[in-house]
Amino acid sequence: MDIKDKIYEIREDFPILKRKMCDHPLVYLDNSATTLKPKSMIDTVVNYYTYLGANAHRGDYEMSAQVDFAYENARKLTKEFIHARRDEEIVFTSGTTESLNILAMTITNTWLHENDVVLSTVAEHASSVLPWLEAGKSKNIKVEYIPLDEQGRVTVDNFKKALHDKVKVVALAQVSNVLGYEAPIKDIVRIAHEHGVKVVVDGAQSIAHLPVDVQDLDVDFFCFSAHKMCGPTGIGVLYGKFDLLEELTPVFFGGESNARFNKCGKVSLKKTPLKYESGTQPIEGALGMAAAMKYINELGKENIHRYELALKHHFLEKIKDVEKVKVYNAEAESGIITFNVYDQGKLIFPQDVASFLNTRGIAVRSGEHCAKLLGEVLKVPGTCRASVYFYNTFEDIDKLVEALKDASFETCLDIFF
Amino acid sequence: MDIKDKIYEIREDFPILKRKMCDHPLVYLDNSATTLKPKSMIDTVVNYYTYLGANAHRGDYEMSAQVDFAYENARKLTKEFIHARRDEEIVFTSGTTESLNILAMTITNTWLHENDVVLSTVAEHASSVLPWLEAGKSKNIKVEYIPLDEQGRVTVDNFKKALHDKVKVVALAQVSNVLGYEAPIKDIVRIAHEHGVKVVVDGAQSIAHLPVDVQDLDVDFFCFSAHKMCGPTGIGVLYGKFDLLEELTPVFFGGESNARFNKCGKVSLKKTPLKYESGTQPIEGALGMAAAMKYINELGKENIHRYELALKHHFLEKIKDVEKVKVYNAEAESGIITFNVYDQGKLIFPQDVASFLNTRGIAVRSGEHCAKLLGEVLKVPGTCRASVYFYNTFEDIDKLVEALKDASFETCLDIFF
Repeated sequence: MDIKDKIYEIREDFPILKRKMCDHPLVYLDNSATTLKPKSMIDTVVNYYTYLGANAHRGDYEMSAQVDFAYENARKLTKEFIHARRDEEIVFTSGTTESLNILAMTITNTWLHENDVVLSTVAEHASSVLPWLEAGKSKNIKVEYIPLDEQGRVTVDNFKKALHDKVKVVALAQVSNVLGYEAPIKDIVRIAHEHGVKVVVDGAQSIAHLPVDVQDLDVDFFCFSAHKMCGPTGIGVLYGKFDLLEELTPVFFGGESNARFNKCGKVSLKKTPLKYESGTQPIEGALGMAAAMKYINELGKENIHRYELALKHHFLEKIKDVEKVKVYNAEAESGIITFNVYDQGKLIFPQDVASFLNTRGIAVRSGEHCAKLLGEVLKVPGTCRASVYFYNTFEDIDKLVEALKDASFETCLDIFF
Repeated sequence: MDIKDKIYEIREDFPILKRKMCDHPLVYLDNSATTLKPKSMIDTVVNYYTYLGANAHRGDYEMSAQVDFAYENARKLTKEFIHARRDEEIVFTSGTTESLNILAMTITNTWLHENDVVLSTVAEHASSVLPWLEAGKSKNIKVEYIPLDEQGRVTVDNFKKALHDKVKVVALAQVSNVLGYEAPIKDIVRIAHEHGVKVVVDGAQSIAHLPVDVQDLDVDFFCFSAHKMCGPTGIGVLYGKFDLLEELTPVFFGGESNARFNKCGKVSLKKTPLKYESGTQPIEGALGMAAAMKYINELGKENIHRYELALKHHFLEKIKDVEKVKVYNAEAESGIITFNVYDQGKLIFPQDVASFLNTRGIAVRSGEHCAKLLGEVLKVPGTCRASVYFYNTFEDIDKLVEALKDASFETCLDIFF
């Protein structure tokens, strides 16, 4: 299937595409930050509110049993979505950030020792580095960084060079949220495992765009959020291999996660995944996420990815003679386009470019994109990031290009909205 | 206003009340577990999906600014709902359980020392006790329990007796989720503060039913979830006095919460409350919760509470000659009715009673209600709990009473749904 042939039908599924921004039809190119929501996902959430309505795993009546069924079915769908071995390997969390923090805390507490090393990269999102830096303080765990190549990529060679005896964990993103490069996860995992090193993958930027097979990649842990793949905010996933999840302990405790406890603090936890899901779960979130997965499955991730690359190549083709636009990641295998605009050789501050694009109805992101360490590599104070998804059109790209041609100090300054 | 006079109008606002359960009109009496959702709340969530759509605090375009505005407005409304001093005292979390866990971890790490004591009660929900038991393990913090009186209440006298020099924190619920008693929070806080003791209140069971004024109560921290007050799941609140939140450190780290960080782990956090809100927030959750608060404000909590007590008294009146039903908390100042049913003097297992009620379309909860320590006080393996809210009717209560009259070993066993 070619998404291009179905694009107007697809766009009909997204009610928000009917809205305007600054009196222009919306051109939404901030899909790395969050994605728009299809009607089937919205309807699923509304159905929870208007029909299911109860709490999960708690009630003694039909309505509650229906919620249990729907909730556990969402877990099953999630398992299939990333090709996990077992339903129990899927822990629902509030999102990637919580998943990564839980892992950093519990892995540090359970498996790491004084002076052990976690290997990361300077391209990581704050949520993939900071948790390790913080959790490791009490045990003097160090975070070291795999050097990036001149393009800004993680390479297998550089990973091998960075690896040493003290490294116990590798924590990195499958796709960088700034440059959109795909890391060679499968090779890294293979080598890491040869050295007894565990691999934690931040899938926030890949899950919506690439086929993800956690068994094929053989990753130990994989984390992502629903809102970056057409689902609700406030819900995400911590995937872990079953035995590892059983071995680790949760960070939060409360109702649902414990089978019993006594006054003195002796707690018997339930089995994975429930031991990680204390408190009332984000129920409509899980159901909405499952609906989003169904929607994406119907389109097919291969088709989505091919279409995104076609949009990106269209941009690159159109912009190649526009000298004032510098693209930092033309080679990236994703729909993330990172660029800056210059006026007579001088950088226009990316936030001003974004504000100018906004006046044309175009939503892009500017700044450091939560990857504050990357400034050291690109040597600029920030960038603009346009990120496409399957509901974007070639016309969206044309509009972006036309607007960028008009961007200058004169047009970009003093915009207030 | 008397809610009784508006009840059919109110019920029209709750689409789910049109559904049936086991072919009977739904009689939803499990409001302590979760509450039903009014149309205005649902519409707010849908509006986020169909119109606002962007991420908060991140974008450089109108749509994102609109989300920021709505999100911070939800914070302001929450502040007003509990009469906090400042917007910054409202931290959005995934719910009560996360709020209580964050507090237990950060307070233990920051303020507590070896052998310090946290004072709780055996009536607490698991989410209010377990986090302290777990967080305190590394520092050998003890949890001690204020003895309950013969009814199962927390009293000021017993609190005073339990207080001693090593007590640094009191953690308890404003309203017990099993017996529905209201704890004398204001007096406890006053006495605690005289001894330099901080008070953490679990407001999960009170927020929807009682007027809550955190300044008047003078509590240091107050936690609650939206889904128990007509809002979405996956969103809740950690209220803390501003200076205390500034002094404490977050548990989770990531995008949004940090102003900057470097490779070596030197992190500059943003100010409260953003430093506690790493990652993409539960945006539609916060907006939905605010819509639920508006709805509740319009009814007025005093009116809601008065109506709940009227429903409860109606039940007590109707049931008083039904000897086989034993009510454990007739005196409780809330709409929580905790009971068991006996057949010729023998306890019918509460889960069987709940299953039988289900066949009549009546949803109640059975079991230990996540307060597993309370079995020691009531001396029964569990109870049934019927909990009312403002959309329940006197007819709902009549149906419950009629069904309970029919409950016996014969009718309650072998029910499968």
